[in-house]
Amino acid sequence: MSRFTEFETYDVRFPTSVDLDGSDAMNADPDYSAAYLIVRTDAGDGLEGHGFAFTIGRGNDVQTAAIEALRDHVLGLDVEATLADLGGFWKSLVHDSQLRWLGPEKGVMHMAIGAVVNAVWDLAAKRAGVPLWKLLADLTPEQIVDLVDFRYLTDALTRDEALEILRRAEPGRAEREQLLRAKGYPAYTTTPGWLGYDDEKLVRLCHEAVAEGFGLIKLKVGANLDDDIRRMRLARAAVGPDIRIAIDANQRWDVAEAITWIEALKPYDVWWVEEPTSPDDILGHAAIAQAIAPARVATGEHVQNRVVFKQMLQAKSLSFLQIDSARVAGVNENIAILLLAAKFGIPVCPHAGGVGLCELVQHLSMFDLIAVSGSTDDRVIEYVDHLHEHFVDPVIIRDGHYLAPTRPGYSAEMNPATLAEHRYPGGKVWTELSTGWQKENIA
Amino acid sequence: MSRFTEFETYDVRFPTSVDLDGSDAMNADPDYSAAYLIVRTDAGDGLEGHGFAFTIGRGNDVQTAAIEALRDHVLGLDVEATLADLGGFWKSLVHDSQLRWLGPEKGVMHMAIGAVVNAVWDLAAKRAGVPLWKLLADLTPEQIVDLVDFRYLTDALTRDEALEILRRAEPGRAEREQLLRAKGYPAYTTTPGWLGYDDEKLVRLCHEAVAEGFGLIKLKVGANLDDDIRRMRLARAAVGPDIRIAIDANQRWDVAEAITWIEALKPYDVWWVEEPTSPDDILGHAAIAQAIAPARVATGEHVQNRVVFKQMLQAKSLSFLQIDSARVAGVNENIAILLLAAKFGIPVCPHAGGVGLCELVQHLSMFDLIAVSGSTDDRVIEYVDHLHEHFVDPVIIRDGHYLAPTRPGYSAEMNPATLAEHRYPGGKVWTELSTGWQKENIA
Repeated sequence: MSRFTEFETYDVRFPTSVDLDGSDAMNADPDYSAAYLIVRTDAGDGLEGHGFAFTIGRGNDVQTAAIEALRDHVLGLDVEATLADLGGFWKSLVHDSQLRWLGPEKGVMHMAIGAVVNAVWDLAAKRAGVPLWKLLADLTPEQIVDLVDFRYLTDALTRDEALEILRRAEPGRAEREQLLRAKGYPAYTTTPGWLGYDDEKLVRLCHEAVAEGFGLIKLKVGANLDDDIRRMRLARAAVGPDIRIAIDANQRWDVAEAITWIEALKPYDVWWVEEPTSPDDILGHAAIAQAIAPARVATGEHVQNRVVFKQMLQAKSLSFLQIDSARVAGVNENIAILLLAAKFGIPVCPHAGGVGLCELVQHLSMFDLIAVSGSTDDRVIEYVDHLHEHFVDPVIIRDGHYLAPTRPGYSAEMNPATLAEHRYPGGKVWTELSTGWQKENIA
Repeated sequence: MSRFTEFETYDVRFPTSVDLDGSDAMNADPDYSAAYLIVRTDAGDGLEGHGFAFTIGRGNDVQTAAIEALRDHVLGLDVEATLADLGGFWKSLVHDSQLRWLGPEKGVMHMAIGAVVNAVWDLAAKRAGVPLWKLLADLTPEQIVDLVDFRYLTDALTRDEALEILRRAEPGRAEREQLLRAKGYPAYTTTPGWLGYDDEKLVRLCHEAVAEGFGLIKLKVGANLDDDIRRMRLARAAVGPDIRIAIDANQRWDVAEAITWIEALKPYDVWWVEEPTSPDDILGHAAIAQAIAPARVATGEHVQNRVVFKQMLQAKSLSFLQIDSARVAGVNENIAILLLAAKFGIPVCPHAGGVGLCELVQHLSMFDLIAVSGSTDDRVIEYVDHLHEHFVDPVIIRDGHYLAPTRPGYSAEMNPATLAEHRYPGGKVWTELSTGWQKENIA
């Protein structure tokens, strides 16, 4: 028997606001950040579990404090018993009778649980000697549903219905795994479309995206309608009629404004409209979806938990469901969401980008392909070419596809040098920036 | 001109789990706590603003850290300019482009904003020399709508519609204020109904509640159906047919289970059913509400923001809307919610209890009575007789009514001795408990 013996957190930040990478209508100057966790055991195998919550700068300290608040929930636990019942472990964190007041199941505390759960899954996959997607894809339907908390879901998805979905997908598992290993999983790119980029850069990056094999690109919209029309026209001209263009408003609009704005962009053939309004507005998304058809709504990166996703499916608020690896409470809750999407026949197109979100979420889509939905039809994982160099096992994109990771674990591990240099506020990157800023402002 | 010069936070906790006060089906052992804030200025008037977020123990440190994260949003601000535009101040906190990633507008970070906003309102009322309810009730309709952020609300409530509601209520303001000062605002009591109490105590407290003039009592339910039926029968026998009995499941059920459980209790005449399921489940609440009619649904203490309340009104998820003074982002957002409720004709019956929630929320209901809904019909504020002795301006209950506070401010201020002794983990109350525990466990 071994025990969890160390629980080490890091406030890690990247000064991305300096270049305006990642700028959109609501997030003008993000500094991509991770509230990062390493768990260690006394097993003597040298294996660690790494996990993180993603934030965009200010507040990453609060997020790190929330992970720290879970220290006593992990330290001292029997590692083998915990890994043998990760559904039970999930519940022990999410249903803590005092901590749940801080949500329940939303915001800072829920993302902190996600970081812990993901770190433990990273360890589980490393111990099994396989990448996480493979670990999950080899579980039996019964083992998979045991990971899911069906509380608050049963009016839309019962355990038995989930089992049926998983059993239906069993026959083709091996074949799809082979296909995945050969070809990878389809990606799309947001790289051309940040609001901070000028027209020349937009067009150049659009051409590059097509050349690199992407079948879908995404533009940020919502700050200024005239600019959006011009950028959409330029992008459409650059990529031609056969490449899909999605637009992303990052929650910028109220319901009526969303409908008007989207109508003005529809002539350029909009594949989906992402986050048209508040991520909490299930009924608002449904009203928009109905009004803009055949254009379609996508959302999810800020959807707080499986209960809100359930309702978005029930209310027909979305046509594409965008899971995020670091918003909800980790792998277990994302499995619940994948099952809900499969039940309602809605394609899952994960949100990624930021720092490390691509690395993580690819595992979930690959698991979905093999063991849940069994399909890549209309399914694509977001890809943004930022900050991958900081990871021990960075994503590999080829011909517009994510190649299946082969290294054991959840691909969550940052390089030790990154953890040291980007630690906030004391790491080298930040002390040098601060010195540079002082020089500039004194000179 | 004066500036905000100090921003002091406290992690304050009360060991309420020792007596099982406050126990319900989801919160077995709460230690009522406050992440507490004092703001000070250099105005030289000696006035401070006090505010807090309420939690139930573990995680109060995270909540306090979240308030700390707002320090730089407050320190150095021009006090007069801030108080002259509290709508703008609210937006500067809620729409911080980096911090909003931690929500947006939910959970730990949103409650922290609530604490800051409420502290500044406490200061505003003290400067004006009036209790908060009076400060708000004397604003013009235009001043009131300027406090509200209508983003994400306009499909249900526009600024013009809000103005119309407020103007309609203007003629009777003085008369209702007089009535309020004479008689107070109706209260109901949860004191008899905690799950941790035995039958004898339940019956005794039911009798006391009636004797004290309460017209509505509330029982916690949801742990065991047979127990609930027995307790409901005992309570109904104790209070007679004319006193309303509400039940509170604290989010215990899924949709189908809620409907079955409530049907079993309906023979004892249920006035409302509170929090039957997840506070995020707008459609679930609506399905339950439809199935259990004429019994009615109440919810709100865990509803994260005005966007979710908007939808609950749109979907007919609730018949009583339960605002909470320390869950959403403070006074401004609760004004938005009061306006939404008025638009949909739904009575507001605030959640209170915990520590300090009664002290705060009474001001909002009194403002609502005078300037918004203009009514106390079917409206009651929850009252729990816990921990009021820790406040400088505790609530006063007479004949089942909250008497209108007369002291300037938002009644948020705890006694200095309480702040010192209950500070966690170093305060006297906690060090003594820990010593007692050690003695017990060594003996």
